[in-house]
Amino acid sequence: MKPSRRWSISVIGSSSASPEILSMAEELGRQIMEAGFNLISGGLNGIMDAVSKGAFSVVGEKSGRIVGILPTDKKEDASPYVDIVIPTGIGFARNYIVALSGDALVVVNGGSGTLTEIAYAWRFGKPIVALTSSGGWARKLAGERLDDRHAQAIYAAGTPSEAVKLLKSLLD
Amino acid sequence: MKPSRRWSISVIGSSSASPEILSMAEELGRQIMEAGFNLISGGLNGIMDAVSKGAFSVVGEKSGRIVGILPTDKKEDASPYVDIVIPTGIGFARNYIVALSGDALVVVNGGSGTLTEIAYAWRFGKPIVALTSSGGWARKLAGERLDDRHAQAIYAAGTPSEAVKLLKSLLD
Amino acid sequence: MKPSRRWSISVIGSSSASPEILSMAEELGRQIMEAGFNLISGGLNGIMDAVSKGAFSVVGEKSGRIVGILPTDKKEDASPYVDIVIPTGIGFARNYIVALSGDALVVVNGGSGTLTEIAYAWRFGKPIVALTSSGGWARKLAGERLDDRHAQAIYAAGTPSEAVKLLKSLLD
Amino acid sequence: MKPSRRWSISVIGSSSASPEILSMAEELGRQIMEAGFNLISGGLNGIMDAVSKGAFSVVGEKSGRIVGILPTDKKEDASPYVDIVIPTGIGFARNYIVALSGDALVVVNGGSGTLTEIAYAWRFGKPIVALTSSGGWARKLAGERLDDRHAQAIYAAGTPSEAVKLLKSLLD
Repeated sequence: MKPSRRWSISVIGSSSASPEILSMAEELGRQIMEAGFNLISGGLNGIMDAVSKGAFSVVGEKSGRIVGILPTDKKEDASPYVDIVIPTGIGFARNYIVALSGDALVVVNGGSGTLTEIAYAWRFGKPIVALTSSGGWARKLAGERLDDRHAQAIYAAGTPSEAVKLLKSLLD
Repeated sequence: MKPSRRWSISVIGSSSASPEILSMAEELGRQIMEAGFNLISGGLNGIMDAVSKGAFSVVGEKSGRIVGILPTDKKEDASPYVDIVIPTGIGFARNYIVALSGDALVVVNGGSGTLTEIAYAWRFGKPIVALTSSGGWARKLAGERLDDRHAQAIYAAGTPSEAVKLLKSLLD
Repeated sequence: MKPSRRWSISVIGSSSASPEILSMAEELGRQIMEAGFNLISGGLNGIMDAVSKGAFSVVGEKSGRIVGILPTDKKEDASPYVDIVIPTGIGFARNYIVALSGDALVVVNGGSGTLTEIAYAWRFGKPIVALTSSGGWARKLAGERLDDRHAQAIYAAGTPSEAVKLLKSLLD
Repeated sequence: MKPSRRWSISVIGSSSASPEILSMAEELGRQIMEAGFNLISGGLNGIMDAVSKGAFSVVGEKSGRIVGILPTDKKEDASPYVDIVIPTGIGFARNYIVALSGDALVVVNGGSGTLTEIAYAWRFGKPIVALTSSGGWARKLAGERLDDRHAQAIYAAGTPSEAVKLLKSLLD
């Protein structure tokens, strides 16, 4: 018998953020894990660490996994909350892989690095949910289309639980 | 004696565009070559082909070179006007390399693929000139800052010759 | 409390092989999983599929995970036995990531593609175990050093169970 | 009118080597340039610098170009003799691009890093010439086939001028 794979959600966001935004990312990670998804991130600091920490707080034998796709070639650079570490060694070209690895993405705040991931995800037709209250590129691009390639705009979610509700409906 | 290297300009833009925009790209390529720069692009169709074609029309023994950094692993995919072909084989992760290879970038129109290149270039502190009259992300981001990493916004240029004048002053 | 991560073993080998070698790879996957490691492979056909199939036959809630790092950008290309799919989209440059992601590697048979992974793993000082009875580059390089960078040669193992015994002693 | 492109030769070899081997690499670079080819290398020290230096000593307005494809994201890391710098930023995954960018390759000495390039070049069916007198993987693999993918073995050349003669006959 062949396995039916879990969906994977890539959460993208900056490597530093305010305590409020980090705590929102933590809540998001918790809810993504509780919803039965795998969590993927860039595996480093800031939003990446916070979302992995939230997921780690509820991870269990029957839940999904916490994956970190690093720019560096050193596993030691990963957030301690990451379970499966992929040290790509390809620098920020790894943003492309973070975007491709998610069945859907959630954007939390985010600067120029996150913007590369949003644009790659859009390019490849991945559903994108922007956590509007987190500011940054998430707020700027919520409800927007990046070009004419797709009709469906980037989704807007006000809270982590709205984002996860949306993910569930998109991936069912 | 050690050589003094020419500056390289990466021109980024979509793989399809209107005749007006393609002809603007062609004019841009011509002027970049006449200014003594190397021209770098993604090496495929549309803006990439047009800017290389313009550069090719004036290339000479004493001028810079026309480089194409392809996503595919096949040199045959390159615009015929490209002189030095780099078939990266890494898909659209090559956008990262296009951004890194320019000492400065010019944006012509552009959709989500181009947006990844703009954001990478910003991330690495490269001067970016947006050709505002070409539309797309060039128009949307001219005069904007992508995050707080740098103080200097994306430069706006109304015409190819304004763009090249700006490049000369930035790289002198 | 911080997690203590499982070790990950990258198994590398060709995308096609004889039934005998495939069944050896399957046995190897089973034993790697039973030993409590994560299994990483290139995620496609042949050895990659066989080793994942073996691991899948014994995977459980308390065991490690089965990871596939694909060259393509499409999750659908993955072996059905892979649990966590990383569709890198960077072509065979993904061999570099397969090598970097293992805490140790096992080589099963293998042609030129596998050779790139062996050489990358050596370059980065990863312990490498060659399954000598599987032929290919595994047999040719068992007991050899690829250059003077490291003193310890590539380990030779006659059977999957010898290979896993060696992995346990190396990673304890 | 469309251009007819020059052939590009990727020369691969270690980042450090004995004075004898470096001087052989320098002679090779000179002859590659005089034969009208573009020269591609990894752009750093050792063989890469020596072959570029040789090419630089005879480069002229009508000759090919000297290209360096760096692992780092900094142009400053390039050998001063490199004319066109591609700072890939993808670490040693750039070896894949060095292999893909040559219409043919010449191996000078070489350790495990060079071995990844030889294996990639073989995988993609590029003609490979090994400079046997330079030792390393060049000597070990001259006359060998890496797997059954191709019938033609790696070519052996005793001297730089034999290597360039071979390149001319292969690419004519």
